[in-house]
Amino acid sequence: MSDKIVLTGIKPTGQVHVGNYIAAIKPALQIAQNSHCTALYFVADYHGLTFIQNRESFNELSYGIAATWLALGLNPEKVIFYRQSDVPEIFELSWILSCLAPKGLMNRAHAYKAVVDKNEQLGLDMDAGVNMGLFTYPILMAADILLFQTDEVPVGKDQIQHVEIARDLAEAFNRNYGETLKLPSYIVDDQTAVIPGLDGRKMSKSYNNTIPLFESAANLKKLISRIKTDSTAPHEPKDPDSSNIFLLYKEFASAAQVEELRDNFHSGISWGDAKQELYQVMNAYLEQPREKYHKLMASRDEIDEILSAGAKKARAMAQPLLEQVKHKIGRYR
Amino acid sequence: MSDKIVLTGIKPTGQVHVGNYIAAIKPALQIAQNSHCTALYFVADYHGLTFIQNRESFNELSYGIAATWLALGLNPEKVIFYRQSDVPEIFELSWILSCLAPKGLMNRAHAYKAVVDKNEQLGLDMDAGVNMGLFTYPILMAADILLFQTDEVPVGKDQIQHVEIARDLAEAFNRNYGETLKLPSYIVDDQTAVIPGLDGRKMSKSYNNTIPLFESAANLKKLISRIKTDSTAPHEPKDPDSSNIFLLYKEFASAAQVEELRDNFHSGISWGDAKQELYQVMNAYLEQPREKYHKLMASRDEIDEILSAGAKKARAMAQPLLEQVKHKIGRYR
Repeated sequence: MSDKIVLTGIKPTGQVHVGNYIAAIKPALQIAQNSHCTALYFVADYHGLTFIQNRESFNELSYGIAATWLALGLNPEKVIFYRQSDVPEIFELSWILSCLAPKGLMNRAHAYKAVVDKNEQLGLDMDAGVNMGLFTYPILMAADILLFQTDEVPVGKDQIQHVEIARDLAEAFNRNYGETLKLPSYIVDDQTAVIPGLDGRKMSKSYNNTIPLFESAANLKKLISRIKTDSTAPHEPKDPDSSNIFLLYKEFASAAQVEELRDNFHSGISWGDAKQELYQVMNAYLEQPREKYHKLMASRDEIDEILSAGAKKARAMAQPLLEQVKHKIGRYR
Repeated sequence: MSDKIVLTGIKPTGQVHVGNYIAAIKPALQIAQNSHCTALYFVADYHGLTFIQNRESFNELSYGIAATWLALGLNPEKVIFYRQSDVPEIFELSWILSCLAPKGLMNRAHAYKAVVDKNEQLGLDMDAGVNMGLFTYPILMAADILLFQTDEVPVGKDQIQHVEIARDLAEAFNRNYGETLKLPSYIVDDQTAVIPGLDGRKMSKSYNNTIPLFESAANLKKLISRIKTDSTAPHEPKDPDSSNIFLLYKEFASAAQVEELRDNFHSGISWGDAKQELYQVMNAYLEQPREKYHKLMASRDEIDEILSAGAKKARAMAQPLLEQVKHKIGRYR
């Protein structure tokens, strides 16, 4: 039985925060531990280009996201870890797929529609500020997926449509040229708890309530001290399950530590002491990754080496498929 | 002084006819004779994919168009003659440019607008039958052009917009990332006479009035005999300049032959004899190319060899520019 192929694209965005880690990175790293799958994780830098058009930021964020995953334990011996822009086959397949993609399919893509809705609310031209990268990226994403005969794509709910579009395009290709491309499935992780930010709302950059993952210990402590709590007095019993401090603690502590803090909540730990406990486990958990992250960012050749080795493996998988596709369309006799 | 770079894309379409030869192929081959330019001529097979989605046709037409140009005298030692699908750098640059291309620019592209107009007349959805290849090909065309720091693109009037879009995208890139891409110019040949078809209207596949370029001698004779003439009697003087036979004759005969036929028109050559003269010069002119065409189509490895050698030269020109572009966007430090 051959391995299942699992693929995940990682967009370079701003500072990675604790919410990103718990909701996306941690589960993806767990999937990669599965010995019955070939995991392909890639830095989707050319997707980032649709919205990062500043040289410094593009560079910083692309290396930053690679360093983040490596620092958090991504094992490049086990995961094929590459940079999208190192695999030119993706862009060629993307063109081929675009010739089979009805324009209507892109008109209905969520990200594009969201911008159009916003423009219309503002009384602007519907396509104001829309570049063609934004409009067509679902096709590039389909190429990302289909080039590797991917079986499964772990996604958030908002990304299900991307995998559906990839399936549509694979079907269109197969219908026209004969069975060639594998139809990918998506896996949605419904289990993931909503990670609260400093103010109790969902942790999100747009709420400005995040705990960046690789803050210094001192800053981490300061941020944790700002977590909103209620006015329960220091000695009063507290409900762990409705506490944001406890929710975050569970993600970083051992089972035994979690039980101990639960007891302490019941017996009336003060908010200040609870925050101190949270800081202790988070800092212990993140200390080494933080150090590794800064080390990698200071020696980017090491990141390049890892990503280049990954790209070599990825291209070795991609090239035979692209050749097959080119045969089917009639490029070769 | 370095050579001017001149680039022409050749779309694989149906059977090439005499009108195509005179209006497009002959002038392009003349430009390539200019010793002060580096001519890049490419088979735009991936542009063809937007409308040829049948394996056999795609293959036949792609090889066919390459064989046609080679048979008509394109010298691959002098012209860099390659197949678009052999130069993956084009598709990567195309993605980069698409991130800088406002969607509005594509909404206004002529070929797309023509389909939308037609759909609206028919009461269909405006995007009915439009694939994303058709919608986005002006960006691919910009990549075709900009990847080689092209100075001049010889075009028909209907293609001026393509070069303008390429300029727009080059400017957008340079404005954002600093001077990198050369702004191409177009050259329009206004001199070209309208080539009449068998019925006297412009020779065009859509009028079904063409003389295919590589018909057998017997068929060529038969087609020429069908050229529409007026009822002037055999011995009466005829006006050469209003005769379609004479117009075609001029394109294939020597200056001396042209003068001789002009005299014969004045002294009352019959239409039948004039057609016989036309057949003689056209057949003499096309005999060798026709033979070479059929020989090439029968040994396609030879075509592959020529195009591969061309692609190697083209990629050697393209790669340094793409690296430079990737530096500018921040892919490298």
